Amino acid sequence: MRLSRYYIPTLKEDPADAEVVSHKLLMRAGMVRKLTSGIYNYLPLGLRAINKVAGIVREEMDRAGAMEVSMPMVQPADLWQETGRWDYYGKELLRLKDRHGRDYCLGPTHEEVITDLVRGEIKSYKQLPINLYQIQTKFRDEIRPRFGLMRGREFIMKDAYSFDRDESGAEASYWAMFEAYKAAFSRIGLRFKPVQADSGAIGGDFSHEFMVLAETGEDTIASCKSCQFGANLEKAKVAAPVSECLCDAPCPPIEQVDTPGQHTVDEVCAFLGITSDKLIKTLLFVVDGNPVAALVRGDRELNDVKLRNLVGGNEIEMADEALVRKLTGAPVGFAGPVGLAEGVPVYADAELCLATDWVAGANAADTHIRHLSLGRDCAIEKFADLRVIEPTDPCPECGSAIEFTKGIEVGHVFKLGLKYSKKMEATFLDENGKSQYMVMGCYGIGVSRIVASAIEQNHDDAGCCFPPSIAPFEAVLISLGGKDEAVNVKADELYRELLALGVDACFDDRQERPGVKFAEADLIGYPMQLVLGGKGLANGIVEAKDRKTGEKTELPIDGFTQAFTAWRKEIWNRWGLEA
Amino acid sequence: MRLSRYYIPTLKEDPADAEVVSHKLLMRAGMVRKLTSGIYNYLPLGLRAINKVAGIVREEMDRAGAMEVSMPMVQPADLWQETGRWDYYGKELLRLKDRHGRDYCLGPTHEEVITDLVRGEIKSYKQLPINLYQIQTKFRDEIRPRFGLMRGREFIMKDAYSFDRDESGAEASYWAMFEAYKAAFSRIGLRFKPVQADSGAIGGDFSHEFMVLAETGEDTIASCKSCQFGANLEKAKVAAPVSECLCDAPCPPIEQVDTPGQHTVDEVCAFLGITSDKLIKTLLFVVDGNPVAALVRGDRELNDVKLRNLVGGNEIEMADEALVRKLTGAPVGFAGPVGLAEGVPVYADAELCLATDWVAGANAADTHIRHLSLGRDCAIEKFADLRVIEPTDPCPECGSAIEFTKGIEVGHVFKLGLKYSKKMEATFLDENGKSQYMVMGCYGIGVSRIVASAIEQNHDDAGCCFPPSIAPFEAVLISLGGKDEAVNVKADELYRELLALGVDACFDDRQERPGVKFAEADLIGYPMQLVLGGKGLANGIVEAKDRKTGEKTELPIDGFTQAFTAWRKEIWNRWGLEA
Repeated sequence: MRLSRYYIPTLKEDPADAEVVSHKLLMRAGMVRKLTSGIYNYLPLGLRAINKVAGIVREEMDRAGAMEVSMPMVQPADLWQETGRWDYYGKELLRLKDRHGRDYCLGPTHEEVITDLVRGEIKSYKQLPINLYQIQTKFRDEIRPRFGLMRGREFIMKDAYSFDRDESGAEASYWAMFEAYKAAFSRIGLRFKPVQADSGAIGGDFSHEFMVLAETGEDTIASCKSCQFGANLEKAKVAAPVSECLCDAPCPPIEQVDTPGQHTVDEVCAFLGITSDKLIKTLLFVVDGNPVAALVRGDRELNDVKLRNLVGGNEIEMADEALVRKLTGAPVGFAGPVGLAEGVPVYADAELCLATDWVAGANAADTHIRHLSLGRDCAIEKFADLRVIEPTDPCPECGSAIEFTKGIEVGHVFKLGLKYSKKMEATFLDENGKSQYMVMGCYGIGVSRIVASAIEQNHDDAGCCFPPSIAPFEAVLISLGGKDEAVNVKADELYRELLALGVDACFDDRQERPGVKFAEADLIGYPMQLVLGGKGLANGIVEAKDRKTGEKTELPIDGFTQAFTAWRKEIWNRWGLEA
Repeated sequence: MRLSRYYIPTLKEDPADAEVVSHKLLMRAGMVRKLTSGIYNYLPLGLRAINKVAGIVREEMDRAGAMEVSMPMVQPADLWQETGRWDYYGKELLRLKDRHGRDYCLGPTHEEVITDLVRGEIKSYKQLPINLYQIQTKFRDEIRPRFGLMRGREFIMKDAYSFDRDESGAEASYWAMFEAYKAAFSRIGLRFKPVQADSGAIGGDFSHEFMVLAETGEDTIASCKSCQFGANLEKAKVAAPVSECLCDAPCPPIEQVDTPGQHTVDEVCAFLGITSDKLIKTLLFVVDGNPVAALVRGDRELNDVKLRNLVGGNEIEMADEALVRKLTGAPVGFAGPVGLAEGVPVYADAELCLATDWVAGANAADTHIRHLSLGRDCAIEKFADLRVIEPTDPCPECGSAIEFTKGIEVGHVFKLGLKYSKKMEATFLDENGKSQYMVMGCYGIGVSRIVASAIEQNHDDAGCCFPPSIAPFEAVLISLGGKDEAVNVKADELYRELLALGVDACFDDRQERPGVKFAEADLIGYPMQLVLGGKGLANGIVEAKDRKTGEKTELPIDGFTQAFTAWRKEIWNRWGLEA
């Protein structure tokens, strides 16, 4: 591509609404433009990067035996009603009506559509397993779209769905996808880590997220320093307590204490002169419409995903002030496990059984209780792992030390099991002519988000540093010829040599100042920069720069093809990639 | 691709709701499945064909200097309000609200979005011309989706938009796209014709449609047998009358005649004993909310697109019964130009000035008038070309005979002029620093519809006959080995040879009866069929069949590559294509 005829509207200033570096650079490098909140136009350069990611993902899906299809964006409500998700998916599901008043949604995901498609066609075990995927535009009506392509409303996703005849087949399909994801993200040139994850609104048996490691990531990952363990914070198990249960240990009788105006853990502890690990925090939630109480130690954080999963619900939210008042008879800040409204089940974090003689709220304004014994004074529905893991916790799998890192979720694989096939009657006949449910898995990759993640992971003050496998162009050849036709003619020749080599190169043949050309090349982040000027031509030299390391080298014009090929190989290798 | 591992759910029976052959065959060949009215899943084979069409279109767009972008499907209402189309686009525009209650639509076309994008970036004449295109999913809420991919609601389209600094630049851009379309449709292997067309809801100066010629087409094309003239029926001009105007010629005084219960042209003519060319039909319409009357000869058909364009409106519809009663004081069937409600402009077809002494409705129940002189008795707003051309009319450009053929619209190019740039203030500074409006064009290709059109144009009783350039696979190699491993191994070798040649081939390695394999190959319509059986292997022969002509030939196994290459070249050439 000759840049004199190409459309790259770069910006000198950071856009006002851009909070993260990928958003700023995607805008400044002329790769995307915002249409409206969370909805972006992909300009030529941005689309090239997206298409390269899609191309690699497609190849790895095909290699793994998945077959590409394309499902509609507009989906009829009745399928979502069959699975029940029409009611509980929440407002991210954008609902609409057609001219006849019939209900539809914009597809945020395609479990319903694919299950409907397959149940109509697959009749026999002989037709299984099958894995179908698509690369397609999805819509999720995020309450607060932000960070450019990182959390948009309309975005490009690869989603695959596997159907197997039994559990072991489904697990094989799952791990085949897991490996395909590892291959794809490796080829894209990302530093990433697969971690255990919660299944969320998709549901199912178990799942992994693929995290791109970047300081700016929204997610926190707990990883073991010794073993392979890694998990999203909302999923990470806390190792079960190993000491003796002290719930029924001797404890003085319960007594009320006045704590006027002391609402927070810190306030109460300071007021009573205790450390926060002696106090129980009582948190009230609503799970699928029903109130639930959860207890954690004062110095811990409750993990509401664990609570939701323990209760077995779909949607969980904090109780509002009015409900707190109704359940406790007191303002917010004084809830406790003793004397709550009847019928509210109380779940306690597992480590609360390691001690007794607790302080807790008294369910009365400005009042707490002390000498609380969970064994004696309360009815605990269940002790279970309910808290967020902390960096000081041991690895739940091997007991070694763990560490926290930041990540960006770019892929998610789910073993769905029978969740959708049961609700939608997706069955087949086995060898004995008996009807069985198909065992499903689903597998997503955020294609447009990967481009943003690659920038978050690879940038410097001058701009993007794209991996060569997904850069809009792998190399730029900059002519500094200006009016010097000899330079321009030679640069043109070199450009043709690059194309002949199969290099996805562009040619900056514009009549711009060298400084402008260099700055834009750095901003856009072509991995390889080649520069030909008058002096270089005289000396028979093309200057070559590795964008990522900044390292410069000289390639001879005489024998350029060979020298460039060797240098290119080196650049790709630095990324752990093969050209 | 090995068909033993591929997903092609063929059907034995025609689906009940399929009215046209392409719909039937796309379903039966396992290429698409309906999700809901007008919304289809593309299965692996169907998607392959679509992607091949898209690939050719993309290459021709790139070659013409257009640059690929991708714009969102969900578009904010405010842009459509700027151009006024939010109000008058009609119900095909599917409107929706997000979680915050803001208005959006699903993009049926992207003039607003692209103009918004470009006006924000292009500031100087130096940045023009520019042509941006995308290949993307669109949504139009058709009142009666039908014919499978032919008239769906969600479909894949290529749309391009050009921006120029002046009229001559815009015309150059228009004709460059016109040529690119010719190149693309030729390479796809379609018999097609570009014809003059109306600009419809897109608006603008002039336009052409590209019609695939097929008996099953919904559109009728008028073409000249001598010159290049071709036009969609709704656009085709009727040659202006060349004889003398007789509007003011002597005519007996007007008189009323009773025509009890005679409503239609035929009834009235029979009752009065006249031929229908002596009667004037008066038709009442509403254009953008205002009533309008139009007169044509009794034996002619009014062209409402011509009327709408003459009046200069956006939307035209027939007046309903209540309005007819209000305007004429009579039931439907007795409208006439004399004594209509005040303020209703009356437009007359040009040929009505060639005679006088007409019969027409009297605007009174069961009554007509005769001896009507349009010059004497009426106020005609304008005489103009208002009728539909007929096969007996002369060519409006050269006067020779014309003929009618059927076609399917697969492409449409529009010179838009300033329509959008004025409404949306898309301006640039010219050489003199003066602000000017950009001159626009827009250019669409129905990518998914082309696959259906190709089938409409190329099929027989056994199934599809795809052009090799867009067939899901260019060739199928069928092994008849069954349990005979020698045959299967040799077939496998030949399959690898085909792939090594760069042929997009599939390999039917299934354990199915030969009859099933042949029938499915015919149904799907791979252009080239290669068959290896036990006898063939013994004789060193692969049987080759041209799907389109049915012609069979034998290729030697020894020297297969060379023989196949020559045969393949011949097959492509029969389609007027180059392999």
